[in-house]
Amino acid sequence: MSLKKSFFAPSEFPHLPEVSGLSLSTIATGIRYKNRNDLLCVRFDKPATTAAVFTKSSMPSAPVDFCRESLANGFKTSVLVVNAGNANAFTGRAGKECCDTVAHLVSEKAQCRPEEIFQASTGVIGKKLDGRILAEWANKNIEKATWQSAAQTIMTTDTFPKASGQTISFGDKKINLVGIAKGSGMIAPNMGTMLAFIFTDAEINQKTLQEIVAQVTDISFNVITVDGDTSTSDTLGVFATGASGFVIENKADIQIFKNALKQLSTDLAMQIVKDGEGLTKFITINVNDAISDESARKIGLSIANSPLVKTAIAGQDANWGRIVAAIGKSGELANRDKTSVSMGGITIAEMGEAVEGYDETPVAHHMKQPEILIDVSVGVGNGKATIYTTDLTKDYIDINADYRS
Amino acid sequence: MSLKKSFFAPSEFPHLPEVSGLSLSTIATGIRYKNRNDLLCVRFDKPATTAAVFTKSSMPSAPVDFCRESLANGFKTSVLVVNAGNANAFTGRAGKECCDTVAHLVSEKAQCRPEEIFQASTGVIGKKLDGRILAEWANKNIEKATWQSAAQTIMTTDTFPKASGQTISFGDKKINLVGIAKGSGMIAPNMGTMLAFIFTDAEINQKTLQEIVAQVTDISFNVITVDGDTSTSDTLGVFATGASGFVIENKADIQIFKNALKQLSTDLAMQIVKDGEGLTKFITINVNDAISDESARKIGLSIANSPLVKTAIAGQDANWGRIVAAIGKSGELANRDKTSVSMGGITIAEMGEAVEGYDETPVAHHMKQPEILIDVSVGVGNGKATIYTTDLTKDYIDINADYRS
Repeated sequence: MSLKKSFFAPSEFPHLPEVSGLSLSTIATGIRYKNRNDLLCVRFDKPATTAAVFTKSSMPSAPVDFCRESLANGFKTSVLVVNAGNANAFTGRAGKECCDTVAHLVSEKAQCRPEEIFQASTGVIGKKLDGRILAEWANKNIEKATWQSAAQTIMTTDTFPKASGQTISFGDKKINLVGIAKGSGMIAPNMGTMLAFIFTDAEINQKTLQEIVAQVTDISFNVITVDGDTSTSDTLGVFATGASGFVIENKADIQIFKNALKQLSTDLAMQIVKDGEGLTKFITINVNDAISDESARKIGLSIANSPLVKTAIAGQDANWGRIVAAIGKSGELANRDKTSVSMGGITIAEMGEAVEGYDETPVAHHMKQPEILIDVSVGVGNGKATIYTTDLTKDYIDINADYRS
Repeated sequence: MSLKKSFFAPSEFPHLPEVSGLSLSTIATGIRYKNRNDLLCVRFDKPATTAAVFTKSSMPSAPVDFCRESLANGFKTSVLVVNAGNANAFTGRAGKECCDTVAHLVSEKAQCRPEEIFQASTGVIGKKLDGRILAEWANKNIEKATWQSAAQTIMTTDTFPKASGQTISFGDKKINLVGIAKGSGMIAPNMGTMLAFIFTDAEINQKTLQEIVAQVTDISFNVITVDGDTSTSDTLGVFATGASGFVIENKADIQIFKNALKQLSTDLAMQIVKDGEGLTKFITINVNDAISDESARKIGLSIANSPLVKTAIAGQDANWGRIVAAIGKSGELANRDKTSVSMGGITIAEMGEAVEGYDETPVAHHMKQPEILIDVSVGVGNGKATIYTTDLTKDYIDINADYRS
């Protein structure tokens, strides 16, 4: 099926800085899709310092296994190989063999260690992928491509390519960051995200980078959800080429870099939500006064993943009782008699009941807007979190009753 | 909106035994619905021994608070009052006052203690309910009604009334059990269920009854899910009138009674799933070889609540990769490389990959049937569970984008 572009798609692809020390290339292998690029290679001039976060699924894809091991052994990345259309997940020994073959053949040509081939696959689960064919295409795939082509190449049910950039000045030195991502369905926290890759020409040690990436993921990719379904293939890779010559090592610079990475990651995460399958509403949920930030996050996700909340919003119905029910089912501490709920900035209920003389008119007006705001306070502490999600529509059903490509 | 009767509705209301020691009455209060009964009263000749399980929501309705307290203080039930259309949930002090008023006025007429009025409400959340009006109707409501009328009276989005009966012989003595239930959306475990009431004319002590009810709930009402949304009002009440003169007290009789209660509860739970909002498929999920029964239950629920699994089944698509992803996201121990998946009794994948030469034809045929069977084994232990659920369809969205009555 052909999917209509999301209402929330940006009007144009963002203007992105160059990241020195790497080159992009894309190609159409024809393995699954016809007439579109589906294989992205990013070649690093020197092995890039790599940090990554992977799916917490107990059924990880073969590339997730492969990269997890390489990273645990301290390897950098010389070539990033990403294919769309086949996730190489739940493919048993053949899946591992595919990754080994790609690593072997691509590293041979790139003259690096097999462990320096960072691999990611997205698409259908349970279908075997031939590593020789993939490697053959990867080794052919050397014509220079743009960020836009890179972002398009890794799409599956996405309706627009996702990218974001940052330039940071440190005195007279500049470093650049660019990230690309894909994801539209099977989006739930507890993971990196579907696939996101962020590149910088800064130099930074691996341990620091990994710490920063883990922290940033928790407040960017891990606060979004489309359908509560976590993928087998979620991978966030961050690659630092060092080609700018600037080394991030003092505390202040690390903080500046972390903030830029957070902004970039949040932008990518929001783009993923804004391309959520079948969405008509982009929903922001602020949870306040929970017992901890983590508890606030869980309450927010309970609301965000509730089919009844999502369908009510799809129907432009300010059915706030369902928000209350979703807080209640979260399993997290909340004081009903101090709980309040607002929509569109209008307080609907507080201290455990509807406000005196509640008038639905302004809230009903807010429900007709494309961006919906929900604020809840659960009255037990100072924990807070913001979650981003979509509504649940008949188009989501259509897309997912059909999709297997 | 008017809802089409579920495809899985029984062709006729079941034939049910009489339960001695109680009388039923139903009436139309007009509080929310027009032209239908919405208030059920069950009057017990003598106070009935009562066991109950309530929602684990942190946002419980006022009647749940009220009954929880009465039961904790060891009270029996003289009158059960149930209304449909308004859940009296998230109604603050007014909610509590409503329950107190109903208890006061109904007990005055029934000449019993206020704590002996067991109350349950289902319907919209967050709307105040006037206890005086409800009590006035309850006290008027004395004309004898049938089980069918009782089951119809407590319906909200249900498309058929739900009831089940059992007769048990102990030598030449007989006791009867009858249960009624309602529920169609906002159905998820971690609770009693939406509303279910079971009546028996056996005599049994409260502590034993409560133990049996808690155990039976875990393997009947707590293994069903429609949408993963737990209600604020879930209540299962079991009432023993003792009017048969038969006392259940020895171990063998307790076991027989427990089995009958389990059969009856499972039957009611299945009826709730079979009336799941918008369903076109009734899905049974068997999970085997988990680390414990509880873990198997969680894995089964992760599959059952996955929007991607549910929409694939709605689309009659044997997309078993999504089942694997749902096992993976459950957070429960599983060995990917020993995991197997079957649909319709046909093994699709085992030892972590698709079976050699897997032919989808017979599975595709199974997917066209109304009842879908999924078996998974996760290869880490002996734990097992069976979960019942529905698919997720556009009709679910329609019903829930509209429903607030």
